[in-house]
Formats: sequence, structure tokens, C-alpha cells
Amino acid sequence: MILVPADKLLRLGTGIFSAQGLSREKAEFIAETLVEASLTGHDSHGVFYIPRYSERIREGHIDPKAEPKIVKETASTALLDGRWAPGQITALKVVETAVEKAMKNAVSAVGAFNCNHIGRVGYYTNWAAEKGVVAMMFVNVGHPAVTVFNGTGKVFGTNPFSAAVPTGEVRPFLIDYATSVVAEGKITIARSKAEKIPTHWTRDRDGKVTDDPWAIKQGGWLLPFGEYKGYCLQLLNELLGAILTGSRTGLDPKKEPPSTNGVFAIALDPDAFIRLNDFKLQTDEILRQVRRVPPEPGKRVLYPGEPEWETKDRRLSEGIPLPEETWSSILELAEELGLEINLD
Amino acid sequence: MILVPADKLLRLGTGIFSAQGLSREKAEFIAETLVEASLTGHDSHGVFYIPRYSERIREGHIDPKAEPKIVKETASTALLDGRWAPGQITALKVVETAVEKAMKNAVSAVGAFNCNHIGRVGYYTNWAAEKGVVAMMFVNVGHPAVTVFNGTGKVFGTNPFSAAVPTGEVRPFLIDYATSVVAEGKITIARSKAEKIPTHWTRDRDGKVTDDPWAIKQGGWLLPFGEYKGYCLQLLNELLGAILTGSRTGLDPKKEPPSTNGVFAIALDPDAFIRLNDFKLQTDEILRQVRRVPPEPGKRVLYPGEPEWETKDRRLSEGIPLPEETWSSILELAEELGLEINLD
Repeated sequence: MILVPADKLLRLGTGIFSAQGLSREKAEFIAETLVEASLTGHDSHGVFYIPRYSERIREGHIDPKAEPKIVKETASTALLDGRWAPGQITALKVVETAVEKAMKNAVSAVGAFNCNHIGRVGYYTNWAAEKGVVAMMFVNVGHPAVTVFNGTGKVFGTNPFSAAVPTGEVRPFLIDYATSVVAEGKITIARSKAEKIPTHWTRDRDGKVTDDPWAIKQGGWLLPFGEYKGYCLQLLNELLGAILTGSRTGLDPKKEPPSTNGVFAIALDPDAFIRLNDFKLQTDEILRQVRRVPPEPGKRVLYPGEPEWETKDRRLSEGIPLPEETWSSILELAEELGLEINLD
Repeated sequence: MILVPADKLLRLGTGIFSAQGLSREKAEFIAETLVEASLTGHDSHGVFYIPRYSERIREGHIDPKAEPKIVKETASTALLDGRWAPGQITALKVVETAVEKAMKNAVSAVGAFNCNHIGRVGYYTNWAAEKGVVAMMFVNVGHPAVTVFNGTGKVFGTNPFSAAVPTGEVRPFLIDYATSVVAEGKITIARSKAEKIPTHWTRDRDGKVTDDPWAIKQGGWLLPFGEYKGYCLQLLNELLGAILTGSRTGLDPKKEPPSTNGVFAIALDPDAFIRLNDFKLQTDEILRQVRRVPPEPGKRVLYPGEPEWETKDRRLSEGIPLPEETWSSILELAEELGLEINLD
């Protein structure tokens, strides 16, 4: 592991994406979402994607010049054709449109298809919450990795769910998780440390219980979280994220482009129910009360979002820990693209 | 256990609620929701509540004549004062209003406060789905029973989440669950059968791991499902179901009326995105594909809602199994109220 300052990664990412045909503004935005994911501890959705997205641009899966376009619209809904633009650009337009419509019409729903990998979903819901809007996102991943409850084999993607709620003085309430027990990134980390994994994370290719982090690379699959309850959300994300938006389902045998997302967002102006300021104050109060709940011995009680803020504080001061191969692949890429690399 | 036909329970329930001041129509509706919960296997929310609600009417917690009233409204949102009417009447008005507004404005959000226990949440979301509308409900229970992730003690209610999606030929997709690992009803059943319970369901009053179904009655508490992931939903339901609607939170020390609900519903017309008929056909197709996923040995793959439909079919033909004390308490109540009981 090597510690790299966030601002360096942001400059490098911006340079790398700019050099591949993105406008400076878009390049910086995408780099920022990836750096933010790394800062908040979501390494599986972080700067590791700088080389990956670059590969997808070269292979023609991501069109760096494309602009997502609204193809169907009402006062409170919109459906976007992402036109295989960078997924972040599509997801930003989804959440911007949802927030704008929620502010005008109290509640809104916006979906997108032909959408590349959008990165960490919580980036967008948090963006909405910072504007005083409650937001939820139901996302399908068109790349099977997770089985269904009681099932075998890879069936659906990790189909993440995210929700964010505006707060006043305390940091935003943010839910952001895969509907599998864990995202694949956590298993990658276990492999890199040669550690065993808990037996409720995966099955091997024969459907056997396993603690081997390699089983998933050898034909195994992830399990949905919380037994049938997480499975229900996994499938809801498939119906809203893929069917409703016209995106590729996890069941679809097509594999290109890799890791597409079907995106469905709901946004809500709390003012339609209670005054935004009261909502924020009362949300603060309940989150403070949660933090005061006596913990189990050796544990801490945190509210959704807190672990991410804590990691961000630490990584902003200490730097972002990166596996050396990730860091060197970013540097190589920058060099290939003829960027001047100033690492001071 | 005794098997009682659903139609007898419906007649008895209707008679019992009518005799306590509800209009015939409302009495029948409430009885129907309870019988439906029993039919679908949600015994903890079933006809067992006929005597309980009656007690709450006598104690003045449920006002049999009250009508819920919209106190704040936009074209696509409404906030209802339930005025302590029977919770079912309030929840029906919530979902009716949400569906009506979603059909006019594509998406809607409706909340309610001063709301008694609404019974099985899935009744209302399913009601919406049968009208061609996607519905979600985020409900808080103002009666602490569940701890928070890594916490100790009863903090929040079982805060159920429900979502239903319209289907074509296959039976509706329906999610309906507590955000605790299990609802208390499952533990009651274990007690009645003198069975041990899995150790991830509850903790005893000292926070110790336990398989004793009595621990929860002796100061213990329920755990949220799926580790921190279910806890996130538990808290989201608290923020939307209680804070946004102005309902009593689980943290509130007040205990009267018992088991209040803060209700928050979102409804969505799929037609704003894809044609309703295509949505139904494609939902059918994906649910059929899920059913064909090879199961783990000795298991079955079902989609959300299927277990309930199967139980309903069986109970419609065989009758609803009731503990004898539940059945006798219903009969005693009918007698007290001077109803003519024709059990043929």
C-alpha cells in the first residue's frame, strides 16, 4: 500500500480523462467522484477506476463526447438516454433533473438507460441531500455476480441501493450499499491480504459453503444480504433500475459494454410535509440520540454515513491508501497520454 | 391450533367492529385486512388483532368514528392527520390518495400522523400494484423493540418496509417485512412450540447472545436484519415514517396509544417511463426467469410475494390455523357484544 494525497489523484484523474477527449469540466467531475469514493473508504468504486474507465473509452464502450438526453418527460418525471456517455455524467444529470423537479413539484422520479458504470451511488444521493432534498436511488448492474435467495449461480448484479436525507448540523445521513452481503471489492482486499472470508459472503462454483476469497474468481457467486430481505431489494432494484428504465437486466447474456447501470432515482422536497428547517433539526436530534445508544462491548454505534465521513477525514489528512499496482497503473497511463506528472 | 374458515372470521370481525361503533363498510374493510394477513401467513398481523383493536377502541385509543383528514396538500403530495381513526382507515386513505395523485402526476408521496396500528403494510402496497401503480411504504412503529446496529436496548420499532410492483399474468411482486431479523410474532410462535430460536434474532436483557424465545419478554431486544444494512433501512423508515410526517418516534418515551404508526408512501405510474403493459410483461418474464434459477439442494427459489400467495391458497381451502386462545377470545368478544354467532 502507498499513501497518495487526494488532490494529486484529482489532478491526475482530471488530466487523464481530459487527454482522452472529455471536456475539462467533465473530466474533473468524474475524477472528483472517484477520489471522493476513495476518500470515503469505498475503494472498490474509487480511483482504481481511472485506468478501467480509460480502457473502456479506448474500447469504445464509453463515449467521452456523448451527452445524455431526456427522451420522455413530465413535470415530475424524466427518462434519460445516457447514450453511453461516461456513467457519472448521466447519473449527475439524473440527480440534477430529479432535484430540480422535486423542488418545483415536491416529488420526482427520474430514470436512465444506455448508462455506463456510474461509480459510487451515494455520491449522487448525497449531492441531492446537500441541496435539501431526500433522494433514493435504485440501481441495477447489468453484470451478474450475485445469486438469488435459495438459488445457485450468478443471477443479478450487486444492485446497489442508496438513500440520503438532509441534516442540519450533523453530517448527512447516507445509505449506500450493494444488495449482496459485500461488494466484490471487500473480497479482493481479503485476497490481497491472504485472509479467509466469512462463510455467508459467497458460495464456490459447486454451491458449497466456503471461506476462500478465491472461490468467487473460480466460478463462485456472491450471496444477497440479510437472507430473503436483501434479496427482495436486489430484485426491486432490478425491476426499477432495469425494467422500468429499459436498461439491460442482470439476466441478459450480453456482456458489452461491461458493468452497465440502470439508474432510477426518486427525490422529495421535505417542505411538502414539514418545514425543511424543522426536518433538519429533528433529523439531527434523532441521529444524535442514536449515537448515544449504549454500544455492545468493544463496538461503536454510528449512524448511516458516519463511517464514510470518518474515513474521509482521516484520508484527507493522511492520504488515500492504494495498492501499488493501482498507483503505478495510474502513473503509467498518465505517461502514455503524455501528461506532465508533477507529484509534488 | 384450530382451523377456522376465512369467511367466518370475516363475518365475525365485521360484526365485532360494527358493534363497536364502526360503519359496516369500515368494519368489513378492517376485518378483511386482518383476515388477509392471516391468509397470507402473516399471523402476527392477522385476526389476532380483532380482540386487540377492540380493547383499544374501549380504552379510547382508536376512535371508531374518526375520519382521517388531509391537512397539507400539493398536486402530488398530501399529509394526513389520521385523527386516531382505525389505522387501516388512515392507511387506506394514504394509499388511495397516493395512487390517485400518481395516476394524475406520474409520481406522488403521501404521509400520515396520529395514526393507529395499520396492520400488514403489504396490504396497501399490493392494493396499489393491482391498480397498475408501483408503491413503496416506509413505516415507523412508535413502540421500541429493536436495537440499532452495534447497540443495546430497545431503540426503534420493527419499522416495516413494503414495496409492490404490478405484474401481468404472474401474481404481484410484493415485499413486506420488518427491518428486524424477524417480527415478534415468529418468536411468539417459537415460545408456543417450546422451540429454540436462531441466535441472530435477539439478545437478552444483558445483551448476551441467546436462543431462548423468552429472552425478548424478559427485557431483551430484537436485532436489525442483515447487520448494518437492515439497520440503515430501519433508520430511513424512522426519518420518513416519523420525522417527515410528524409522528411519534420509537425513541419517544410516551407509550399511549400503543403501537402507533407513522406512514409514508411513494407511488409511481410506470407509464411515465415505459408502457404499463410492457412493464407488466417484462416484470412477468423476469420473475419467471428467477423461478427457473437452479435452487440449492432441498430449497426452492421463489420471488417476493410468492410464499404469501401459496399460503393464501392453502389457507383458503383448509382454513386459517389459530391458537385456541385467539379463537376463543374472538368468540368471547362476539358474545359479549351480543352478536349472533352462526358458525355453520
